[in-house]
Amino acid sequence: MPQPETPVLDTLTVPEAIRHLSAAELKTLADEVRAETIDVVSKTGGHLGSALGVVELTVALHHVFETPSDILIWDVGHQCYPHKILTGRRERIRSLRQGGGLSGFTKRSESPYDPFGAAHAATSISAALGFCAARDHKGETNKVVAVIGDGSMSAGMAYEAMNNAAETTRNLTVILNDNDMSIAPPVGGMSAYLANLVSGGAYQAVRRFGKSVAERLPRALFEMVRKGEEFSRTYVTGGTFFEELGFYYVGPIDGHDMDNLLSVFKRVRDITDRPVLVHVVTQKGKGYAPAEAASDKYHGVAKFDVITGEQAKPKANAPSYTEVFAAELIKQAQIDPKVVAITAAMPSGTGLDRFAEVFPTRCYDVGIAEQHAVTFAAGLAADGMKPFCALYSTFLQRGYDQVAHDVALQDLPVRFAIDRAGLVGADGATHAGTFDIGYLGTLPGMMIMAAADEAELARMIATATAYDDGPSAFRYPRGEGVGVEIPAVPETLAIGRGRIVREGSKVAILSLGARLPEALKAADLLGARGLSTTVADARFAKPLDKELILQLARHHECLITVEEGAMGGFGAFVLHYLAGEGALDNGLKIRTLTLPDRFQDHDKPEKMYADAGLDAQGIAASAMKALGFSEADIAKSAVL
Amino acid sequence: MPQPETPVLDTLTVPEAIRHLSAAELKTLADEVRAETIDVVSKTGGHLGSALGVVELTVALHHVFETPSDILIWDVGHQCYPHKILTGRRERIRSLRQGGGLSGFTKRSESPYDPFGAAHAATSISAALGFCAARDHKGETNKVVAVIGDGSMSAGMAYEAMNNAAETTRNLTVILNDNDMSIAPPVGGMSAYLANLVSGGAYQAVRRFGKSVAERLPRALFEMVRKGEEFSRTYVTGGTFFEELGFYYVGPIDGHDMDNLLSVFKRVRDITDRPVLVHVVTQKGKGYAPAEAASDKYHGVAKFDVITGEQAKPKANAPSYTEVFAAELIKQAQIDPKVVAITAAMPSGTGLDRFAEVFPTRCYDVGIAEQHAVTFAAGLAADGMKPFCALYSTFLQRGYDQVAHDVALQDLPVRFAIDRAGLVGADGATHAGTFDIGYLGTLPGMMIMAAADEAELARMIATATAYDDGPSAFRYPRGEGVGVEIPAVPETLAIGRGRIVREGSKVAILSLGARLPEALKAADLLGARGLSTTVADARFAKPLDKELILQLARHHECLITVEEGAMGGFGAFVLHYLAGEGALDNGLKIRTLTLPDRFQDHDKPEKMYADAGLDAQGIAASAMKALGFSEADIAKSAVL
Repeated sequence: MPQPETPVLDTLTVPEAIRHLSAAELKTLADEVRAETIDVVSKTGGHLGSALGVVELTVALHHVFETPSDILIWDVGHQCYPHKILTGRRERIRSLRQGGGLSGFTKRSESPYDPFGAAHAATSISAALGFCAARDHKGETNKVVAVIGDGSMSAGMAYEAMNNAAETTRNLTVILNDNDMSIAPPVGGMSAYLANLVSGGAYQAVRRFGKSVAERLPRALFEMVRKGEEFSRTYVTGGTFFEELGFYYVGPIDGHDMDNLLSVFKRVRDITDRPVLVHVVTQKGKGYAPAEAASDKYHGVAKFDVITGEQAKPKANAPSYTEVFAAELIKQAQIDPKVVAITAAMPSGTGLDRFAEVFPTRCYDVGIAEQHAVTFAAGLAADGMKPFCALYSTFLQRGYDQVAHDVALQDLPVRFAIDRAGLVGADGATHAGTFDIGYLGTLPGMMIMAAADEAELARMIATATAYDDGPSAFRYPRGEGVGVEIPAVPETLAIGRGRIVREGSKVAILSLGARLPEALKAADLLGARGLSTTVADARFAKPLDKELILQLARHHECLITVEEGAMGGFGAFVLHYLAGEGALDNGLKIRTLTLPDRFQDHDKPEKMYADAGLDAQGIAASAMKALGFSEADIAKSAVL
Repeated sequence: MPQPETPVLDTLTVPEAIRHLSAAELKTLADEVRAETIDVVSKTGGHLGSALGVVELTVALHHVFETPSDILIWDVGHQCYPHKILTGRRERIRSLRQGGGLSGFTKRSESPYDPFGAAHAATSISAALGFCAARDHKGETNKVVAVIGDGSMSAGMAYEAMNNAAETTRNLTVILNDNDMSIAPPVGGMSAYLANLVSGGAYQAVRRFGKSVAERLPRALFEMVRKGEEFSRTYVTGGTFFEELGFYYVGPIDGHDMDNLLSVFKRVRDITDRPVLVHVVTQKGKGYAPAEAASDKYHGVAKFDVITGEQAKPKANAPSYTEVFAAELIKQAQIDPKVVAITAAMPSGTGLDRFAEVFPTRCYDVGIAEQHAVTFAAGLAADGMKPFCALYSTFLQRGYDQVAHDVALQDLPVRFAIDRAGLVGADGATHAGTFDIGYLGTLPGMMIMAAADEAELARMIATATAYDDGPSAFRYPRGEGVGVEIPAVPETLAIGRGRIVREGSKVAILSLGARLPEALKAADLLGARGLSTTVADARFAKPLDKELILQLARHHECLITVEEGAMGGFGAFVLHYLAGEGALDNGLKIRTLTLPDRFQDHDKPEKMYADAGLDAQGIAASAMKALGFSEADIAKSAVL
């Protein structure tokens, strides 16, 4: 299919040219950007629905505000494809989310039009306030705009920032992009409140009267502001929540009505006596029928056919770890009525949507609210339930203090199901599950497992269900398993015991997690060079299998640990233990392989693991280097 | 001074007896509990002001609700002394905060009346919702009550929980204990909003008419609830913020009027169709004139004279690290106009109150909002300022994702001033700064320093001010320095370079942070046994001084690392590096001494460090053991 025709977009040789377009041209531009976005994502895959929802908003913001001098911060940043198309990255846009290509989120290193990168939710208002404070200190006058979705409004961080806005600056614009969706339907009191505002009579009247009302209203607003009145209360339906936190509230306004957006933004731009919140109503997936019709509004899609909307289905060789988690947790919950599950706005991402179908009253979606998710789980555990708190590794960082203070310190049996552990590919460094082994492992009493394959995951879920002595966690990667059979009744594991997978004598590879197949391949490579290699699956990052580790250390010349995580995790715990036992005193060629001590850009996970030296070649090379082989010799061993 | 007379309190042989007291007796009981609390804290020190503010509230809650079957959760828990006196812990109350004695916070292991422990702010509503959900699953009918201060309402976690309350349960009582203070005066839009509610006409009318109104109103409320009306809007002045999140709002009511409290709580107890928030106005320090008169309302006090209110002043041998931080940051800010400072509700705890006196427009108190504090600082840094984000180590955990995602990943030069690093004494495990070396050190690009003494702290502040290449952190302990002179113009340190403090040949002690004097004493102990000992100050946990570490490893038989932190930190990084270099291949008696892998109860810090083996004796013993000395031999070396 040919690329869409984009005559107006083609004239924008510099982003600033958008400032000189007429309203009619801006509308055409929006249509073209929409078509371009659909075309791009049909070829790259990515976050489509959110991007389509903000096309008019993006065009209007860049027209009215003088980016990049005016600071524009997109919350999460997954809706930024139109923004990237308009800000000098159109030529590279078809490299989106590909190795070496553009990031799927805003990113400071990519463009001055991305003054603050994102990917996790609800950071934009805090960052914007930082820019406001810096501006005010420097005596400058640029505007600062944060665009935040209604889904992010369940996050405490957004509230903390709103609570501080009026005390920090008088000159900030927050655009609340309300599409009544985050990834899943939104939850919570705030969401109901916003829906109430939108369903109010005045908003509906604005829509009915269309442009003429839109033109009149902002002028009236402006007059009221000038006179110091709190205009929004009288303007439309409410917004007292935001008013009570110190904002002017403007809205709700139709986020696909270009005239409306332009006139409101022009008025709002001149307000400098109080932060303003503009409530803009958009439609996720707007303007692309298959997206509008889909229940998830094409939030995240694979490559697809633009005409039919049909997405490419990657050939699956095995169920994904996420699917296995869902199926196995359902199995446990059928046996044990105390099992309940918690997700923070990721029912489909974590597989808990399936759990909720079977046990609707035993599944809690708390919204983007990881802090609450963890302590809520702690409360459930304190009263005798068996909560499984299912979060992505990277998002669990949001609840770290709660894990430490509410769960670990009280030794409460909360089960953390840590999805997306290790590298995640196209979503890049912001979504990689890199740090959890270290930040959880340093906490006393935390039991931590990592699954080598999907059958192991099933056993770990059974183990966590049975384990009531304190907190536990099990981590597993993004993507599909290795295709092993899952036991119908998975056995529980002995706590803190690993397993020998292959017996050898000279080299020992101690793997934690899903690098085990690579460890076995490395053993093959080493074996081909006459280096008899033991491979063990640690299963537990904590408590360590001390007996196993000592045995590996004492009966091999070289010990290599392998993990899908950063420095300071499993390998560090093994070293600390062996040092304390004096097991390093007489020499052990030990190497602790981890992810590198730098953030890795998005790419295919296997390429990223190879880059990290965590593939078979890298593991084998590490052992051979430790044993004194030359670089040339090692290179020869890279293939069997 | 004799203990106060407490005839009613003395009759309460079991906590449940409070249910049978008359209103008049309850008032007397409150007076007695207040006198007892003052007497206790005058002898132990502790959090007095908050405890005095909730005496009537505590008595009323235990009278109306059937604790411990009804779940009562105190947010933070530092106001719980009256609660402890009333719930079976009166005999041990004078052991409060002493080694082996009662905790200064609620603690599950202490009593069934403490169903959920605390110390960090704003956890109570999340935990209470967990108890509600568990109760609802089990089909039980007990009540769940969370008591949360207005200071905690700036924390995003409280908002996340409130946002989830109505979807989670119909049967929850939240008491908003509004004393218009957290530790410092409260900040933010929420605080202004609450003040507005309290200053409203209806609350003042309630106070004016006193008991008769109090008696009438709750009955009217009850009728309205029964009829399904949203009573609070009509009841008094507002509360729409809470109503919009799905709560019934009741209040504000006078928290020292026992009749009022009793009748409202009795009504509220029966509401089971929606969560209720009761807005109670209390006075911090109530009923003790010196506390009422003090600007901090005796938030945290040393032992004091009950008659005069005069607090014991501990003899200071040196300025505290906190004072040094404040003085040195002021010095840097006088030179560099880009220096700004951020605190999360701890202006006096972090010393930034002094900074704010000198630079009122360059200091931000964002309230209890660590997530926002970190990303706000990131925004400031992104626009060219030099933000110092001053937080206690344990509270920085709240902003961990923001450190990772907003600061480290974008390589922004935010400076983290980490106070209370290591053990803190009477505040116990919840406040210990144990984990930061590990959880920060695992993040790529994070520069981390730890101060060996107050002069080093001054140099590190100068270094952080000058360092603009990425994020940095410097950690320093609670309490006073060692008394060394602070250079008038502290020099900046070479990044990633430690220093040799004493030259030796057989043993090397590599110390990170303020255990350096103990390391030197250990060297003396070892020297007395003929073990020539090098002592080095690492200064940097990241980047490591690789040259120094390799040199120590290669030229000594034994290498001991020492740090004031948990497993997985500095020692782990040293091991990981040495292993990768092959520097362990031929044997090195290396031991990485850390805090133990368990939570340590409150005690005097030096006792806790000795318990951890991090005092001179412990360090020396570790080296001697590594070198093969017998236990008996080691014991002989414990003193010079």
